[in-house]
Amino acid sequence: MNLAQSILEGSRLALARTLSLVENDQPEGQAVLSALFPYTGRAHLVGVTGAPGTGKSSLVNQLARHLRRTPDGDKPRRVAIVAVDPSSPFTGGAILGDRIRMRDLAGDPGVFIRSMATRGSLGGLAAATASVVQVFDAAGYEMVLIETVGAGQAEIEIARLAHTTLVVEAPGMGDDIQAIKAGILEIADVLVINKADYPGVENTERALRSMLELAHPVRRPSLADAPHEDDPDAPIWIPPILRTVATETTGIPELAAAIQRHRQHLESTGGWQQREHERLVAELHILLRESLLQRWMAEVGSAAYQQVLDSLLSRQISPRQAVQQLLAPDTGEKAR
Amino acid sequence: MNLAQSILEGSRLALARTLSLVENDQPEGQAVLSALFPYTGRAHLVGVTGAPGTGKSSLVNQLARHLRRTPDGDKPRRVAIVAVDPSSPFTGGAILGDRIRMRDLAGDPGVFIRSMATRGSLGGLAAATASVVQVFDAAGYEMVLIETVGAGQAEIEIARLAHTTLVVEAPGMGDDIQAIKAGILEIADVLVINKADYPGVENTERALRSMLELAHPVRRPSLADAPHEDDPDAPIWIPPILRTVATETTGIPELAAAIQRHRQHLESTGGWQQREHERLVAELHILLRESLLQRWMAEVGSAAYQQVLDSLLSRQISPRQAVQQLLAPDTGEKAR
Repeated sequence: MNLAQSILEGSRLALARTLSLVENDQPEGQAVLSALFPYTGRAHLVGVTGAPGTGKSSLVNQLARHLRRTPDGDKPRRVAIVAVDPSSPFTGGAILGDRIRMRDLAGDPGVFIRSMATRGSLGGLAAATASVVQVFDAAGYEMVLIETVGAGQAEIEIARLAHTTLVVEAPGMGDDIQAIKAGILEIADVLVINKADYPGVENTERALRSMLELAHPVRRPSLADAPHEDDPDAPIWIPPILRTVATETTGIPELAAAIQRHRQHLESTGGWQQREHERLVAELHILLRESLLQRWMAEVGSAAYQQVLDSLLSRQISPRQAVQQLLAPDTGEKAR
Repeated sequence: MNLAQSILEGSRLALARTLSLVENDQPEGQAVLSALFPYTGRAHLVGVTGAPGTGKSSLVNQLARHLRRTPDGDKPRRVAIVAVDPSSPFTGGAILGDRIRMRDLAGDPGVFIRSMATRGSLGGLAAATASVVQVFDAAGYEMVLIETVGAGQAEIEIARLAHTTLVVEAPGMGDDIQAIKAGILEIADVLVINKADYPGVENTERALRSMLELAHPVRRPSLADAPHEDDPDAPIWIPPILRTVATETTGIPELAAAIQRHRQHLESTGGWQQREHERLVAELHILLRESLLQRWMAEVGSAAYQQVLDSLLSRQISPRQAVQQLLAPDTGEKAR
């Protein structure tokens, strides 16, 4: 029996094996992924981002546990956790994190945890994450939690994979002028203040609320009395600000409800299809860029390439001029 | 007189105008950049990265002030600061940071500060940063400090632009399991514990030192008695760990000396040429990928592209299959 069929029939072993093949960009993995692709598009993809120290991993674990205990309809929901660490070229940190996780969620066959570290370029990591998420989607995981470490551009790119993005803060982290970035607020669908039992939680919430008002000035009147926050069918989504204490599971049911409301909002406003569309086009372009470079490198004469590279390295021509020379009809294309 | 000539003759106005043209990827900017490129390759490029809250900006400001006061040879050194914020699609934060900077370094014509926020993709930001750095290099700035916010993949990609990379930590930040990443240590040439007057500095230094030993196990015996830390001609560079209190300028001269030692190390071991080579090849490939995609998009029939896109969006084919179909000889290439 082939791997794709086994995954569709619920084999955890086939799933684990396929994830490794896909993550390492093996041809066999790509074949399985293509066979599985028609079965994707059903999972709710939830991105979770925020600075180190906000207790993001505990929050994700508790959210997964809660989702497991509250069935969606008549059957228990299956939950996948994809932990992405763009800053680590090693798997060491990820494996350590895994072990801590395993302890929390051990023995629950409805939860699957996968850690990913950097594989080559950022584009490569985003593409590999997209593929891993598709495998879980096809395998019938109703919810995929994509957790990223940090809050830089890499995390934003990976958050774009998600339907719903949670941005996690903690009291005391927002004192630094750089800590809460407007760019991060822009991608947030739900804002979470974790460690809400720490001092300073009022200040953090006030800071977030005023930054939200700055980010959405046209919505300011509605923010003041916040009529939309609980209405999933409203045309505009105002990111709610929730307080949690993940270690004590405080606020976790409310967080799960907010995620569910955001899904309803996306479905009732057409936002779900739009995000699917944008995500697939972005993924297509990442793959196209890389494939075009590989094809071109194979086609161009290595002598022609080396000659231009030498001119570049001796600073006779700039990188732009090197590209122009390489892509001019009489050099790079000669090899065809 | 043209812009390139004016820059080479020291015009600050021409420099500012060219930076804007280059940052916005204007054709005129590219032309100036190509004219300037043969004059590049002399500046010492120093990357500064670290989490928010470590006081990185103050450190960079104080380092710039110190470098201005200590001439390199017989003439005062000129210093450029490029502040890159990959997480902010807005310039708001950067502009605010700029104003705080301006206050510190106001009126010194030998310092030029430029802030950059995200322009489109990460590849775009790294390429734009590389171009801005080249303009400063050609303009005769002996030292370019490239400061990035955060410590994700984006920051690592930008740090690769530098000859010498400082990683800044602060006491208390290292308590979190995720705060000090092995991946960050791998790119560090000099480790700085700023805010060294805060409690917990001993713990932070101990944690960094043991992570360094883990990262460089073969060097452990030499780390124990650290004979290389002050010897720039040693074949292996052991990243020194320095303590600073930027707000009081404590440790800044020692930091400047460590940066200088690292430059000597690179020059005596061939590392300088190697980093130059790697950087230019990486920049060439970023530009090639984007140019190849643009050329291909212009060449492919839009009907053929739309047809494949529709199959992808309706999930009949996977993104990989879409790329295969688009790059097969009988579709995409037909338009030639």
